[in-house]
Amino acid sequence: MVEHVSEGTVIRVGVAGVRGYKGFEAARLMARHPRFKVVMVSSDAMAGHRLKDLDPDLRRDGMAQAVGYNDTISAAKDYGVELMLLATEPEMCATLGGELFGAGIHAIDLSGAHALKSAEAHAQTYGFPYPEVAHRAVFGLTEHVTPGGLAGQKLVANPGAYATTVLLALLPIAKAGLIEPGSVVVDAKAGSSTAGRKARISLLFSELDSNLYANKIDRHQYTPEILQELDAAQAGHGDAPGFKLTLATHLLPLARGVLATSYLRVRGESDTRRAAELVREALKKSYAGSPFVQVLDSAEGVQLKRVLGTNRCLIGATADLWGERVVVVSALDNLGKGTAGQAVQNANLVFGLPETMGLEAGVETR
Amino acid sequence: MVEHVSEGTVIRVGVAGVRGYKGFEAARLMARHPRFKVVMVSSDAMAGHRLKDLDPDLRRDGMAQAVGYNDTISAAKDYGVELMLLATEPEMCATLGGELFGAGIHAIDLSGAHALKSAEAHAQTYGFPYPEVAHRAVFGLTEHVTPGGLAGQKLVANPGAYATTVLLALLPIAKAGLIEPGSVVVDAKAGSSTAGRKARISLLFSELDSNLYANKIDRHQYTPEILQELDAAQAGHGDAPGFKLTLATHLLPLARGVLATSYLRVRGESDTRRAAELVREALKKSYAGSPFVQVLDSAEGVQLKRVLGTNRCLIGATADLWGERVVVVSALDNLGKGTAGQAVQNANLVFGLPETMGLEAGVETR
Amino acid sequence: MVEHVSEGTVIRVGVAGVRGYKGFEAARLMARHPRFKVVMVSSDAMAGHRLKDLDPDLRRDGMAQAVGYNDTISAAKDYGVELMLLATEPEMCATLGGELFGAGIHAIDLSGAHALKSAEAHAQTYGFPYPEVAHRAVFGLTEHVTPGGLAGQKLVANPGAYATTVLLALLPIAKAGLIEPGSVVVDAKAGSSTAGRKARISLLFSELDSNLYANKIDRHQYTPEILQELDAAQAGHGDAPGFKLTLATHLLPLARGVLATSYLRVRGESDTRRAAELVREALKKSYAGSPFVQVLDSAEGVQLKRVLGTNRCLIGATADLWGERVVVVSALDNLGKGTAGQAVQNANLVFGLPETMGLEAGVETR
Amino acid sequence: MVEHVSEGTVIRVGVAGVRGYKGFEAARLMARHPRFKVVMVSSDAMAGHRLKDLDPDLRRDGMAQAVGYNDTISAAKDYGVELMLLATEPEMCATLGGELFGAGIHAIDLSGAHALKSAEAHAQTYGFPYPEVAHRAVFGLTEHVTPGGLAGQKLVANPGAYATTVLLALLPIAKAGLIEPGSVVVDAKAGSSTAGRKARISLLFSELDSNLYANKIDRHQYTPEILQELDAAQAGHGDAPGFKLTLATHLLPLARGVLATSYLRVRGESDTRRAAELVREALKKSYAGSPFVQVLDSAEGVQLKRVLGTNRCLIGATADLWGERVVVVSALDNLGKGTAGQAVQNANLVFGLPETMGLEAGVETR
Repeated sequence: MVEHVSEGTVIRVGVAGVRGYKGFEAARLMARHPRFKVVMVSSDAMAGHRLKDLDPDLRRDGMAQAVGYNDTISAAKDYGVELMLLATEPEMCATLGGELFGAGIHAIDLSGAHALKSAEAHAQTYGFPYPEVAHRAVFGLTEHVTPGGLAGQKLVANPGAYATTVLLALLPIAKAGLIEPGSVVVDAKAGSSTAGRKARISLLFSELDSNLYANKIDRHQYTPEILQELDAAQAGHGDAPGFKLTLATHLLPLARGVLATSYLRVRGESDTRRAAELVREALKKSYAGSPFVQVLDSAEGVQLKRVLGTNRCLIGATADLWGERVVVVSALDNLGKGTAGQAVQNANLVFGLPETMGLEAGVETR
Repeated sequence: MVEHVSEGTVIRVGVAGVRGYKGFEAARLMARHPRFKVVMVSSDAMAGHRLKDLDPDLRRDGMAQAVGYNDTISAAKDYGVELMLLATEPEMCATLGGELFGAGIHAIDLSGAHALKSAEAHAQTYGFPYPEVAHRAVFGLTEHVTPGGLAGQKLVANPGAYATTVLLALLPIAKAGLIEPGSVVVDAKAGSSTAGRKARISLLFSELDSNLYANKIDRHQYTPEILQELDAAQAGHGDAPGFKLTLATHLLPLARGVLATSYLRVRGESDTRRAAELVREALKKSYAGSPFVQVLDSAEGVQLKRVLGTNRCLIGATADLWGERVVVVSALDNLGKGTAGQAVQNANLVFGLPETMGLEAGVETR
Repeated sequence: MVEHVSEGTVIRVGVAGVRGYKGFEAARLMARHPRFKVVMVSSDAMAGHRLKDLDPDLRRDGMAQAVGYNDTISAAKDYGVELMLLATEPEMCATLGGELFGAGIHAIDLSGAHALKSAEAHAQTYGFPYPEVAHRAVFGLTEHVTPGGLAGQKLVANPGAYATTVLLALLPIAKAGLIEPGSVVVDAKAGSSTAGRKARISLLFSELDSNLYANKIDRHQYTPEILQELDAAQAGHGDAPGFKLTLATHLLPLARGVLATSYLRVRGESDTRRAAELVREALKKSYAGSPFVQVLDSAEGVQLKRVLGTNRCLIGATADLWGERVVVVSALDNLGKGTAGQAVQNANLVFGLPETMGLEAGVETR
Repeated sequence: MVEHVSEGTVIRVGVAGVRGYKGFEAARLMARHPRFKVVMVSSDAMAGHRLKDLDPDLRRDGMAQAVGYNDTISAAKDYGVELMLLATEPEMCATLGGELFGAGIHAIDLSGAHALKSAEAHAQTYGFPYPEVAHRAVFGLTEHVTPGGLAGQKLVANPGAYATTVLLALLPIAKAGLIEPGSVVVDAKAGSSTAGRKARISLLFSELDSNLYANKIDRHQYTPEILQELDAAQAGHGDAPGFKLTLATHLLPLARGVLATSYLRVRGESDTRRAAELVREALKKSYAGSPFVQVLDSAEGVQLKRVLGTNRCLIGATADLWGERVVVVSALDNLGKGTAGQAVQNANLVFGLPETMGLEAGVETR
């Protein structure tokens, strides 16, 4: 081990992909967590630098050394890393995930590479072979993991930000058997950081300012995760496999945040007001003890600004009497509960710490 | 007459509500139109001022005098107004509309006060009595007015910006008999100027910046207009009255623009790809000769930025194979084709001028 | 006392003006502070409500009751308030400040009403009589208060956000005797929340988006505070009183933040590079032990985004060889170090707590 | 010639660099100009495409063919180009400018490559050899070119957007002999499109949103142009060469626009109010007959939003009594009067057309 940490109880963390938005946010959250300590990061662009070079805000963990991706595993061993957060491209995360698993180092993958249970869906989505260890991964939508199910896990597949926004809203409704098959339309709206920190013309301020458009219909990278979880929930109610869902995502002149408006009908309930009540009840029951998910009485109360910089998700449901549907709106910060915040929440549970540790204050902004 | 204009062919225009966004934009468009000339404006806040006081950009029409709303009609007569654009609150527009009709002065109403054919729907929507002359008004969704139907009309009821965005997308599909009843969900996204120029905390930059939320579900002011027109179109295909539509509107950190994402199924067509083709064909056929509505091959090509500051509407349709729906996206500038631009387009046709006159260069953005 | 708090060491806090941006942020910061507890707020608009009604985020302090301004003092006594944060209009804060001082309750005023030592400057700036207790107030620019000077103080006059941004940059340079009299130009740029939470047309999103203008030249409310402090610092170097300063403020399409670009010449130093070094040295020496003020090597490194949501101020200085001036850029979050954050920092020192308590995590955002 | 145009009076235009913001805006303006017609564009990225592929908005000139930069000259000859707008990188523009000059084809260069009269300043600024033909170029700050000085010119060097903003404000003051040497500080604020359409991380929406910083102090590319013109103006008043100027530019969360706040003292005038009057008089006199430059009574009236999408520049001056300076604020759209709009204005004058032709309606904003 290159470096020794005197505090006996500190858990040593590495971050792969610290130059991206997800990885950087994860490093920042870990940098002020009372029990985790970032000791190593990897990033081809940053190789050879120290973490504090990336941002003076990270100076408390300034000793963390950056290596290239190819040296991630050996550096992880040298630095005694106990938990690695994988926040770079899926294929690299798949490679690193397998090696870390072999080396007995805990990993939380934020890339999606280990999220799917179907090798076929994986191949269609990511275009590289199914990682062997993916079937050993826990799907880390924290509020829906079996109680105790994260403790001690070696590999956690963090859901994507879109998937987390949609699943936190729809999964309790599906589990309660309320969703009329085929009725769900999800219209998601998201800020530019969901597209990553990539030097692309289409992501320039000059292009996105005052702009708005549907960027993906019917083929979003995270749709398979959503279908996989909803399918499983519906199966419990005797539905045939193959959950049908319309999902369109839109890019907005916002840097951060995802807000999803979901439209659905409740099975066997023709009174729309009553349908909305059933949906609200299912949501409130599901999140009664949750520190991070709040269910509001109305879909119109869900304001993106109230979740930015936090690990919270807000959800509200309203009856639409004209169209006879229930409208469910959910919102979160894609770099908070959508990725890095949820990774810390999961890390807490993997290591037996309180779920909210290091996340109470969030990075709230108004 | 207070003032004489030497150019024989100039048409004298008044604007009621010139302090609001719609009225101001209408005055600006008219100020550079080759054949219209703003000679009078009304605005309680501006009474006694001259148009150029409002904005130096309007200095070419700087002689136009502003009066209070109560003096609008007498001033209109004094100044020889031939066309009045009504762009203040609906109830005032209803009052002025009736008086102008009685005085034989052409009026185009941008407030919605004369848009509904049903007195009952009107009362529920606006909360004041149905204006008698509303049944004499032409519903001015320009591309869908019977050819020649605007020429010489005394009263035109301009559709609202949301209604224009949604109807331009859905009306050709409904007219072609393609909409499966009950299948339509419309998720609309709009900029702050759609909420008007009102001193409200909720519309402050400090509140809306980095924010996003559903502001109206199931009770938007312009939904009755949408239902009225779609109902009529569906009736032609034997459907029972009572078009069912789910419509949610969202407020975005944008000053201008409306983009609507409409989700629907095509009647009797289970092949979604073929359904999308039928929709595209109906749209392209409907707007083949239209100078302002462009139908693109894909819903993802419809970018708000491309319509800002113009009188254009872009529409595109894409098949959603997972959910088996057709997704239609339409976008326009709420102060262009959504209100003031369409008012000028209608005014051109009322007075027998070329439809595009004064609009070729688009509506200037501010 | 209406309510009892069992934790012996909790300090009971009230906030006057909790509906405004400054007051709300102060309440939020206090709501997660380990030692302070908000037990009472006042706001005419919120009278009779509970704090949690204002925002679910404040639910941990949800028992705090809101009263109207006229009942602030009696409620403060009833609830056993030990510290009141004054964040409403200056004249009301002046009234409340005097009464709290009489009642022996600690107060920190964020309004500017107690910031000036000259009754004449006060009258010109605020238009109401000089508050008697203002001469008993400590000017709470934390880093420049004499060590220990805040402990136990009854009345702290928090500097405004502009004044804090400018003074943190210029005061160390003035104290070091480096400023050439008459040479200072300050060009300040600020977000809309610096103008308060007021229902004004000019502050609407529709007006400010894509906009930018100088909103005050030569008569900003906080200029007298700046002059007062710089005058005192210059006096130590034998300069005649009457510090001359050009200050223009600009409103930007930003919700939060102040960035000030200060241009100056160094007394007696004709080598601009050396002048910039002297300035940097003075700044670095002044803030060597400061947890919240960071001095960077270059003015161009000072990015507003890095201070948003924090209690930090970044400062950098660069030589301008063409014009032979030193350019100093400073930036902070107007609701963080600019007002509410600095109030908490001051409150910590008044009550003998660590300066950074409750502020470490800030409300950081990127 | 590849293609024939029947309208006898149409002037055939080419645009080099049509993929960038300046080139695209120039093509758009020319596409709706009544007398110019874009017949050819060049862009390595677009080579082989037609202009309409770039944007459906340009479909009226859809026949224009794009070639690579190396084929620009031969294509210009083939297509009978009479005027080429150069809007790509300076070194390529220098090469093309020389060849076009040799071929007798009119050129307007928007890159800065032909703007400097000093070969030494050129080399320091651009890092490639001084173009021989640069000394034959007219510096196209339209309002300050000798009357008639543009007619028939073969090569016009358009000033940059920053230079235009600053020079339109300061040149009349300098020409009137009012500027106290050494007193000028310019604080410029600009939107992201001034940095070009480049795939850079620092220009991403995710990076610039809610951000603000000084991006260049003392070494902006367009400073030499500013100094060159001010130096010449001051020389007329007996000042030694070597105009000293402090200029800092700032990047803002705006897509378009430049606003410059200039601080100065008036030579020999100690009464600041009177100094501001002298400045205003000089400005008003200079632009009395100008269709595009408007001088307001106050610096605070200059709002960026009022010039966006237009070819206008607004200028206002205010006395700063505390600091004893005059503050001059000027604003324009960097893609309007700052580059493409001014290019069209110059093109009009080169070809003997009315100065405002094609620009009355302003530059459309996107």
